[in-house]
Amino acid sequence: MKKEVAVGIDIGGTNTDFGIIDRDGNCLAKDSMKTNSYDDVAPFLDELTDKIKNQILSLNGTIEVKGIGVGAPNGNYFNGTIEFAPNLKWKGVINLAEMLDKRMNLPVILTNDANAAAIGEMLYGAAKGMKHFIVITLGTGLGSGIVVNGELLYGHDGFAGELGHTIVDPEGRLCKCGRRGCLEAYASAPGMVWTIREMLKNDNTPSVLRNINIEDLTSKDIFLAAQKGDKIALEAFDYTGKILGMKLSDAIAFSSPEAIILFGGVAKAGDLIFTPTKKYMEQYLLPIYRNKVKLLPSLLKKENAAVLGAAALVWTH
Amino acid sequence: MKKEVAVGIDIGGTNTDFGIIDRDGNCLAKDSMKTNSYDDVAPFLDELTDKIKNQILSLNGTIEVKGIGVGAPNGNYFNGTIEFAPNLKWKGVINLAEMLDKRMNLPVILTNDANAAAIGEMLYGAAKGMKHFIVITLGTGLGSGIVVNGELLYGHDGFAGELGHTIVDPEGRLCKCGRRGCLEAYASAPGMVWTIREMLKNDNTPSVLRNINIEDLTSKDIFLAAQKGDKIALEAFDYTGKILGMKLSDAIAFSSPEAIILFGGVAKAGDLIFTPTKKYMEQYLLPIYRNKVKLLPSLLKKENAAVLGAAALVWTH
Repeated sequence: MKKEVAVGIDIGGTNTDFGIIDRDGNCLAKDSMKTNSYDDVAPFLDELTDKIKNQILSLNGTIEVKGIGVGAPNGNYFNGTIEFAPNLKWKGVINLAEMLDKRMNLPVILTNDANAAAIGEMLYGAAKGMKHFIVITLGTGLGSGIVVNGELLYGHDGFAGELGHTIVDPEGRLCKCGRRGCLEAYASAPGMVWTIREMLKNDNTPSVLRNINIEDLTSKDIFLAAQKGDKIALEAFDYTGKILGMKLSDAIAFSSPEAIILFGGVAKAGDLIFTPTKKYMEQYLLPIYRNKVKLLPSLLKKENAAVLGAAALVWTH
Repeated sequence: MKKEVAVGIDIGGTNTDFGIIDRDGNCLAKDSMKTNSYDDVAPFLDELTDKIKNQILSLNGTIEVKGIGVGAPNGNYFNGTIEFAPNLKWKGVINLAEMLDKRMNLPVILTNDANAAAIGEMLYGAAKGMKHFIVITLGTGLGSGIVVNGELLYGHDGFAGELGHTIVDPEGRLCKCGRRGCLEAYASAPGMVWTIREMLKNDNTPSVLRNINIEDLTSKDIFLAAQKGDKIALEAFDYTGKILGMKLSDAIAFSSPEAIILFGGVAKAGDLIFTPTKKYMEQYLLPIYRNKVKLLPSLLKKENAAVLGAAALVWTH
């Protein structure tokens, strides 16, 4: 008998990860491609479907693909669309589920990328058995998947959970969404680069980061410098943790979760980001919530929680 | 046959409203007393239960009381307790449900006052038929009752929905909770008084409010002055609406509700508070949410939504 599987796709602002996943969350094949190399969505999907078809062929008749699950920034679960995603080059409303269905001839379920990660963590990762938790994706942008009473929070229109666009400072940094002072403009890979550029400009402290052309600086450079104890890089992590911790305290006052899980590129910095975020989160929390809410890394080390969660949409839909 | 009824009690920072409510939400008797005249909870409950027993007697054997529902600031649904309520004189953890049960010998269900108001609006008021909405109580404090998928959001510990203690400015006004810059320190009756005192100090614009001793100023004075077109009073409403509108935009990015309902003393100012709040809320919203979320007054004009909602807890528990 063939093994029933689903295709899971996690579309990020920089990379797209995808894989063939069975009902138990085992990954039978996986691959990745650059999202931001494609100015249009059609050639991106052409290339993606070619790669997926090759994955399916490589499993050589042992599997039966039941459907495709997609996590995408600004993904709308109700409509199967990506709508006005600030971190993608593809603008406006994109009928991604329909476009993918035409190319693959398989049912496609789409949701927000952070929601997909939340499903992955709930079924296979750090949130197993939890009824109330939040997943924060820290990468090109800041996404959030909110689970209440064991179910994803979609809201009345499918767009609940955009914590990256809650406001830190109404006069603050210009966000890609066109407004000012969004959390994402501070707590994300580009937000950290913005922070370090400001710090290098306004502070004379020596830093290895001064050896890099300021226009070429990446969040990875900041991470590597911080690991070596670079003072400015460490300050940038502290500042990022302060703002993220403050806004997480707001999120806790909203849904009182058991845990918040940090996921994505910036979260891979480990203690460098977790320690200040936890410190400031506790400091800013209303006393009734203090020392109750866990701040956890993704437990899915080898696999991408959003790919597993996107695939799981096929079973739970 | 006797009519089945429940007692509904809404404990506010200033007043406590209560009544005898039937299964259809009809109020058969109602009364009110001052909460803040009682330094201790025991004599408050002695007086309250005397009054309720008299109400029951006045209905002269036509009713059968099935239970008591209570809405209270910092009320915990899971424990039947009021815990560390900044706007009450009674400190620490109070086993209110147990204390009331002993006095009345009836089952007591307790929840947060704003949750009770949300239940009242959902069953009988502005949120009839809605699955996703938020009730904001604007009075001595700022409370919030959040409904998702047609159910109150309690979170993992019963304390979800403390939007009054989300942070507007971490260096801002000292809040009664001991932290700085909480929404409640700006958008509430005492918050508006704080705002007007600052404005009268920092601005020379003539105002009828200058005729009142600055220590005796109340939010009602501000309301009456604004109604007469007093410039400073109108500015205070605009400023309150700006801060409230900004934080409501954060709340919408969290749960994407169909509507937000403003309830309580400050909300009774009508357009004076609704117009600026709506204007700034739309301005601060992420585009995907704009012109979608209704900002509504309580539809329960004659009755107190929190009393009706508290009583309804007895039927839905």
